[in-house]
Amino acid sequence: MTESYQGLLDEEKVFKDPVHRYIHVRDKLIWALIGTKEFQRLRRVRQLGTSYITFHGAEHTRFTHSLGVYEITRRMIEVFQGRPHWNEEDRQLALVSALLHDIGHGPFSHSFEKVFHSDHEEWTRAIILGDTEVNQVLTSIGPRFAKDVAEVIEKTSSNKLVTSMISSQIDADRMDYLQRDAYYIGVSYGHFDMERILRVMRPTEDQVVIKQSGMHAVEDYIMSRYQMYWQVYFHPVTRSAEVILSKIFHRAKFLYKQGYEFNQSPYHLYSFFDGNPTLEDYLRLDESIVLFYFQIWQDEKDEILKDLCVRFINRRLFKYVEVNPNIQMTDWPRLRELFTATGLDPDYYLVVDSSSDLPYDFYRPGEEEERVPIHLVLPNGKIRELSRQSDLVESISGKKRTDHKLYYPGDWLELDDEFKKEKQEIKKLLFQEG
Amino acid sequence: MTESYQGLLDEEKVFKDPVHRYIHVRDKLIWALIGTKEFQRLRRVRQLGTSYITFHGAEHTRFTHSLGVYEITRRMIEVFQGRPHWNEEDRQLALVSALLHDIGHGPFSHSFEKVFHSDHEEWTRAIILGDTEVNQVLTSIGPRFAKDVAEVIEKTSSNKLVTSMISSQIDADRMDYLQRDAYYIGVSYGHFDMERILRVMRPTEDQVVIKQSGMHAVEDYIMSRYQMYWQVYFHPVTRSAEVILSKIFHRAKFLYKQGYEFNQSPYHLYSFFDGNPTLEDYLRLDESIVLFYFQIWQDEKDEILKDLCVRFINRRLFKYVEVNPNIQMTDWPRLRELFTATGLDPDYYLVVDSSSDLPYDFYRPGEEEERVPIHLVLPNGKIRELSRQSDLVESISGKKRTDHKLYYPGDWLELDDEFKKEKQEIKKLLFQEG
Amino acid sequence: MTESYQGLLDEEKVFKDPVHRYIHVRDKLIWALIGTKEFQRLRRVRQLGTSYITFHGAEHTRFTHSLGVYEITRRMIEVFQGRPHWNEEDRQLALVSALLHDIGHGPFSHSFEKVFHSDHEEWTRAIILGDTEVNQVLTSIGPRFAKDVAEVIEKTSSNKLVTSMISSQIDADRMDYLQRDAYYIGVSYGHFDMERILRVMRPTEDQVVIKQSGMHAVEDYIMSRYQMYWQVYFHPVTRSAEVILSKIFHRAKFLYKQGYEFNQSPYHLYSFFDGNPTLEDYLRLDESIVLFYFQIWQDEKDEILKDLCVRFINRRLFKYVEVNPNIQMTDWPRLRELFTATGLDPDYYLVVDSSSDLPYDFYRPGEEEERVPIHLVLPNGKIRELSRQSDLVESISGKKRTDHKLYYPGDWLELDDEFKKEKQEIKKLLFQEG
Amino acid sequence: MTESYQGLLDEEKVFKDPVHRYIHVRDKLIWALIGTKEFQRLRRVRQLGTSYITFHGAEHTRFTHSLGVYEITRRMIEVFQGRPHWNEEDRQLALVSALLHDIGHGPFSHSFEKVFHSDHEEWTRAIILGDTEVNQVLTSIGPRFAKDVAEVIEKTSSNKLVTSMISSQIDADRMDYLQRDAYYIGVSYGHFDMERILRVMRPTEDQVVIKQSGMHAVEDYIMSRYQMYWQVYFHPVTRSAEVILSKIFHRAKFLYKQGYEFNQSPYHLYSFFDGNPTLEDYLRLDESIVLFYFQIWQDEKDEILKDLCVRFINRRLFKYVEVNPNIQMTDWPRLRELFTATGLDPDYYLVVDSSSDLPYDFYRPGEEEERVPIHLVLPNGKIRELSRQSDLVESISGKKRTDHKLYYPGDWLELDDEFKKEKQEIKKLLFQEG
Repeated sequence: MTESYQGLLDEEKVFKDPVHRYIHVRDKLIWALIGTKEFQRLRRVRQLGTSYITFHGAEHTRFTHSLGVYEITRRMIEVFQGRPHWNEEDRQLALVSALLHDIGHGPFSHSFEKVFHSDHEEWTRAIILGDTEVNQVLTSIGPRFAKDVAEVIEKTSSNKLVTSMISSQIDADRMDYLQRDAYYIGVSYGHFDMERILRVMRPTEDQVVIKQSGMHAVEDYIMSRYQMYWQVYFHPVTRSAEVILSKIFHRAKFLYKQGYEFNQSPYHLYSFFDGNPTLEDYLRLDESIVLFYFQIWQDEKDEILKDLCVRFINRRLFKYVEVNPNIQMTDWPRLRELFTATGLDPDYYLVVDSSSDLPYDFYRPGEEEERVPIHLVLPNGKIRELSRQSDLVESISGKKRTDHKLYYPGDWLELDDEFKKEKQEIKKLLFQEG
Repeated sequence: MTESYQGLLDEEKVFKDPVHRYIHVRDKLIWALIGTKEFQRLRRVRQLGTSYITFHGAEHTRFTHSLGVYEITRRMIEVFQGRPHWNEEDRQLALVSALLHDIGHGPFSHSFEKVFHSDHEEWTRAIILGDTEVNQVLTSIGPRFAKDVAEVIEKTSSNKLVTSMISSQIDADRMDYLQRDAYYIGVSYGHFDMERILRVMRPTEDQVVIKQSGMHAVEDYIMSRYQMYWQVYFHPVTRSAEVILSKIFHRAKFLYKQGYEFNQSPYHLYSFFDGNPTLEDYLRLDESIVLFYFQIWQDEKDEILKDLCVRFINRRLFKYVEVNPNIQMTDWPRLRELFTATGLDPDYYLVVDSSSDLPYDFYRPGEEEERVPIHLVLPNGKIRELSRQSDLVESISGKKRTDHKLYYPGDWLELDDEFKKEKQEIKKLLFQEG
Repeated sequence: MTESYQGLLDEEKVFKDPVHRYIHVRDKLIWALIGTKEFQRLRRVRQLGTSYITFHGAEHTRFTHSLGVYEITRRMIEVFQGRPHWNEEDRQLALVSALLHDIGHGPFSHSFEKVFHSDHEEWTRAIILGDTEVNQVLTSIGPRFAKDVAEVIEKTSSNKLVTSMISSQIDADRMDYLQRDAYYIGVSYGHFDMERILRVMRPTEDQVVIKQSGMHAVEDYIMSRYQMYWQVYFHPVTRSAEVILSKIFHRAKFLYKQGYEFNQSPYHLYSFFDGNPTLEDYLRLDESIVLFYFQIWQDEKDEILKDLCVRFINRRLFKYVEVNPNIQMTDWPRLRELFTATGLDPDYYLVVDSSSDLPYDFYRPGEEEERVPIHLVLPNGKIRELSRQSDLVESISGKKRTDHKLYYPGDWLELDDEFKKEKQEIKKLLFQEG
Repeated sequence: MTESYQGLLDEEKVFKDPVHRYIHVRDKLIWALIGTKEFQRLRRVRQLGTSYITFHGAEHTRFTHSLGVYEITRRMIEVFQGRPHWNEEDRQLALVSALLHDIGHGPFSHSFEKVFHSDHEEWTRAIILGDTEVNQVLTSIGPRFAKDVAEVIEKTSSNKLVTSMISSQIDADRMDYLQRDAYYIGVSYGHFDMERILRVMRPTEDQVVIKQSGMHAVEDYIMSRYQMYWQVYFHPVTRSAEVILSKIFHRAKFLYKQGYEFNQSPYHLYSFFDGNPTLEDYLRLDESIVLFYFQIWQDEKDEILKDLCVRFINRRLFKYVEVNPNIQMTDWPRLRELFTATGLDPDYYLVVDSSSDLPYDFYRPGEEEERVPIHLVLPNGKIRELSRQSDLVESISGKKRTDHKLYYPGDWLELDDEFKKEKQEIKKLLFQEG
């Protein structure tokens, strides 16, 4: 491909989108990137991993979300055009970074990454800079362009303004996913007035700031984010599916390492088991591939792998209880003993999962992860950090909330079998008042 | 399983649903059916087949739709309760038939069925009456219950009223899919006032009729259906993906029959290639399985199978021209010759696809497929066929619309290679004024 | 006021609007016009007259609608900018004409105009060209500007393109009111994809045309209009209120002409009773003024005026029957006799009201009112009238629908009094099968 | 009227409503109450007073809102039916109290009550118990029924459960107005998941409580309420119109007391000026009456009355500055002097208006106004106050927010006249940094 993708299409292309109504593409560059096989692959990776098991509407993919982030960025630029600090030459950089910010995600990223020590940010860099169709298209714009894009996505770019459009506390990414996830699931929490927020965004030298008159819309957005985290993203049923998923990956890797002979060899995963996947290996993966193996593993000889796959595929999930890690964990060794005694391996069947969120803290600078706070610009031109201006945000700032749950196979616990005594003790330990 | 699923749950269960807000389940029977592995399998079959390639929002599954049809039926029954002709004993029959009406659908049904002479209605019957979890649950209600359900779904039941709730010109199935497909895609055509229609539905001895005061809402529903057909279901890009999909199945079957050796044996499909699949074979299929094979076939030796799979997976679809079958088809033999001359097999690369719809005709009785027309009940109790009462429906009744398109690989046609002359002639034949 | 309103505001002003989300004002001229007392007066004139009596949500005013038409026109211009045939100098003319197109409407225009032979189009011209704040603002732009605006609104302008933006079969006026009325009432029929229609509108020398790819959205708009007419605008209950309203005006005028002495003199109306109102008289009117008199007339001595006002204010409306004017009107003289015999003046209590609409015809040129049809522009640049391209529109074109209803006081007819025999005969004549 | 309104209508009546889609009426009693002239009068009283001057969509009336509160109560009862603590005999009491809770509101209640020391709660009692159509209808149900209804609305009823359905921190009233006001204005803040909240409401002996699983929906509702207060109900432009309105009433009363001769006697208001209005006087008032006088007063001789009316009618409102009452009010006497010096009466033209809200406090019991907090019922049946369970509510509880603004005629201040020096000093005092 020696073609250049600089310039505009003869006619604008549009995608129908339920969240933004239409997604508008004028640039040849954007059109070409959407057509690459690496980008099309995102059609086969769900945006919300296992959430579809809890919320049946959550089938939407990262492809859809990526287009949405691009579209929001495009609208942001419309607002910025002609304003101080906005450099129209950064337009393509911003649009492309928005479009490609999730290109490195793989199937069920969350669990996959934990088990295989894989990192979607590294894969993103590899896709953008490696031997890919994406890289070919980017390089047609200029020799440094791919690198510039990678740096914006990695947050190492010197272009702080463009970086903050794509990743900050109120960026195109978050604004798309909150609305989109809420829409597909059908919950009302995801609503905030994005059109208003876009209208009051202003470029400055090193970040996007918000006109004070839009403060209430931003408060609404923060509340929306808070609700989505606790009611959707950290939903205990989703986490149950996630727990099982992780354990499947663990078991398969464990078996492979032990020289176990699979009925049909899961060769797509070998290099991940071995810890040396190539970019090509990674790009071959998607959720059909993973689900294919999970399905055939329902017939495996290994009882644990088989059982976990049957559970995942047919939605026979683990139950859970809230745990207080300080108090209850004193019972942990005894619980594991009891599980083992009944023949269940506690490494797979007794799992603590914790979620925690600092939804309003990131609005105080200088903390972990160096989160850049949201800034307002006052009518007199001064800049003020949001929580100093908003009572609402102030009151919820800095309050970390953590939630610990212990997952176990509830159906098995209710089963009336020879382990009556052990199960009774397990129940006593699980259901004591936390 | 000797458990009985008669009776109500201790507490109602709800599913969040973006179309109907909540889906309410009170019956143990319904809850148990949703939990069967045959029903969970519908999570892995998209509602709209290849439409997601045209409209990126169309990722929703038959699982979601089936719950929606159940919910609409549940609301219909709320309206019917206590009215003449409604027999409360039919409640479970109606709810279960609604829930299971699509249980026999497989991956990409439309193309799959055409190529493999498979029929989802037969599979539905097999799942309901065969050795399945669904059948076990149904049988717990009574020995004849599974058969009754199968007959309602097959439209052979003597219970015409319940049958018409699930399948008629204005039934729970259509009302769900029009709204749901429109919602996920983000088009506005799918809107009609379902709450109003439900309120004016009345049971009669042999069908559901509509109070005359609801006629305008029904008109709106018919228009909605008309628009959805031509703008969504028959969208030419979707049909392009469908054409390629069919050709992949054809090619794989052809190669198998010829004794071709696949890199990895697609054993899930063997019995379908041979024409003797068992129910177990069928239930093992879903869209992950099919997409797994399509992906690995991108590396097959056979050039045609490989190319078609690369096209499908990476959305490199065929282009199309409108054709007038009477006139242009005189050029058909010459076109095929030219394709062959350039090395492309016209059986796979030059495909006519026709869509036709009689959207308003079904409102005249006695035609093909014995479509039962919609009937209004007037204030004086008389029954009248809709098109005699509605000017709007009358004016669009009986007008069949057909559309023929010829699909071909546009990228190849534009490629500048040694077949310049042939391609020029092909273009002349394709782009002549229809 | 010698100030000029040429130029842009320092900062854009916005109005929150539920239909278009925000209404954006950049021009000093528009801002100044909105602030005139003649325009503010539209806040006290409901958009839908008596419809609020049928649909309690329909309280919205002509002020709101006028802003909406302005906003749609503003968006249309955004699409037109830079395209052939669009002259950017016409921008202000289009925006102002859109904003002021209804400025001449008075309280309950429909009935008011019929009874007092008043014409809102003449008042529009008078307000634009007369001694008003509106005229002062317009004149600051240039000596001919007010006249140009008046001509666009009157459809006598030589600028056919701008005229067609404001008034044609698919113009900013209709697109706003269909959506707005539907929104405030809460009906679903008013939905169509305006964003899509705006995107496919193209300016030509003498009218706005639609790209063929937008045809389905236009079909949807036409259906929307059809449903709104019959279900909202011609709703029989609204017409009942309208009938009473007209009769109140008639009676008050009649009494005035007879020298009747009102309890409190309705001096706002004198010049209208006399047929010689000044512009100042007209601008003093609004719906508060009219409702003030209706309320105090509930205590008038004249029995008819009093009764009609009590009915209107407290929503004790007339009932109605469908009539076939050809057949049933033979009974007309007898019905009037019977009403008179029971002491009810048939001029006020027995009223025929007819509504008729040619919703799809206007798509055939050359008919009454010289309605310009909607034109599509095909990919090859040719222009074609809509109904030749759309099966749906073709099938509903040219079908005039008329509806005749006879209104009478149903409560009185049910009252058990000395006129039993007469009422029985009246009922027989009214309720015979049409 | 000796008719009884006990029992059900032959056929359910429905009102189209944009917020709840339909409002369903089955009871003769409800239908009869809606038809009374006292209830119809609510059509002529806007729900949000002067807010329509800020948000042009806010034209909706108390009639609409009252129907909405009734409908929500009706749905609440559907959830309560068959549950412990719910007494089906209270159904009519709850529905009627919901419908009539605002029946005593008059035109622009907020200002009207302040100036004339009128109290809508007393008028409510008077309408329910006095010689009215409403009372006649209620009495047909039983001799004590009207009194029972009055006591529920006044919160003196011994039936605490029914009282809490209509007025508590999360009642049918608030749930309707938040959604309705947001809908008509077009803001997104009013959204919360009412259907969810209704589903998790449970009757107890003395109040409605919320199942813990619905806590997040309640949090969302509280945030919604918070945003609506500060962005809609306390909007500074609305308060400017309110300030002028109050001053008009003050001036008219003052002039009357002084024996001033009005061009046309505002006899509707005399008994209010004198402080001895009868129920009949009160029921004759509505917003048309008030606006009629405001309009004719634009031509009064008194300069202050005339100017204020011109300002109100034509939206020439006062400007405002934030004030810090502790600091800036030291300049108050000087400011008043300066106004007087320039010929403007500071009693009418220099007005402080304060708004304050304790949006989250009411969730701590025992404070002013004895607000009953919201209670959750935990899975174990225990009852807990919301802020002890919700981090979000806890963090915003007890934080009173107050806002003081000083209103003055900005146009006059900018006018270049002989009082240059005084105005300069006024500006200095007004615009000093607060």
